[in-house]
Amino acid sequence: MDEGPHIRQAQGDGFRWEGVELLAYKDEGSAPFKAITRQVLFQRPELQCELRYFEMKPGGHSTLERHEHAHAVMIFRGRGSCLVGDEVREVTAPDLVFIPPMTWHQFRASNGEPFGFLCMVNAERDKPQLPADAQLQELKKNASIARFLDGASSPGQD
Amino acid sequence: MDEGPHIRQAQGDGFRWEGVELLAYKDEGSAPFKAITRQVLFQRPELQCELRYFEMKPGGHSTLERHEHAHAVMIFRGRGSCLVGDEVREVTAPDLVFIPPMTWHQFRASNGEPFGFLCMVNAERDKPQLPADAQLQELKKNASIARFLDGASSPGQD
Repeated sequence: MDEGPHIRQAQGDGFRWEGVELLAYKDEGSAPFKAITRQVLFQRPELQCELRYFEMKPGGHSTLERHEHAHAVMIFRGRGSCLVGDEVREVTAPDLVFIPPMTWHQFRASNGEPFGFLCMVNAERDKPQLPADAQLQELKKNASIARFLDGASSPGQD
Repeated sequence: MDEGPHIRQAQGDGFRWEGVELLAYKDEGSAPFKAITRQVLFQRPELQCELRYFEMKPGGHSTLERHEHAHAVMIFRGRGSCLVGDEVREVTAPDLVFIPPMTWHQFRASNGEPFGFLCMVNAERDKPQLPADAQLQELKKNASIARFLDGASSPGQD
């Protein structure tokens, strides 16, 4: 949305917008994720943050990662679960989720419906870090995190 | 939302959130507005922008103003109309509206239902400017702007 009209109408079922491209979540193979897309709603030189919309198919999930920058998230479609630090929670539109700096986080769709969220993020930000094997094993010592990462809280996904 | 839990559940009809205070839009008497409230969803030192939710009752409106900072808006509830520069448009959730710097703008609810929008804005920003009488008269030379400012596109408001 760097150029163009001031108003972009929602299209279809209300989770696409005119002139906003449906993008891959990340480069394929760069990190683990499943069945998730990205749309950049606002990315302007006048704004110090960007607003993106991510949507997962049922059973999809974002990457388990952390970084120095923070995320301000509003669940926008459906329901799913999220990991924030050592907290695993069911979330439903339009719940708010704050991801503090250097906090492991992941979003997982439930089985039955698409799951989407808005994410506000600083335009200038560091790259995400993936967990090393030892960090992943440490996380999985928490039984609810282990169940979350295994997809057990969302029956039907892989 | 400077402190507190990472997750704030939506409440009631989905346009309030736990721990998020319902605020006056602006100080009473500081500028013209009508029947509009403000909730600050994200305002954190780690984020260079804030995310707010504004909601108007039927017939309500925000202030006609301009400023150096930009607004990134998503209509979140209902329908209404907006002025952006010399453009008057009907908007419906979840349309996107970008307000460029130093552009006169106003949002007006339709008559029948509450009208709400999310607004992303730089945390550091200048104060809004109100139109001088001469600027208002200049704006009203455009017939569609005159109708909008008179509330004619939203029958029933003042």
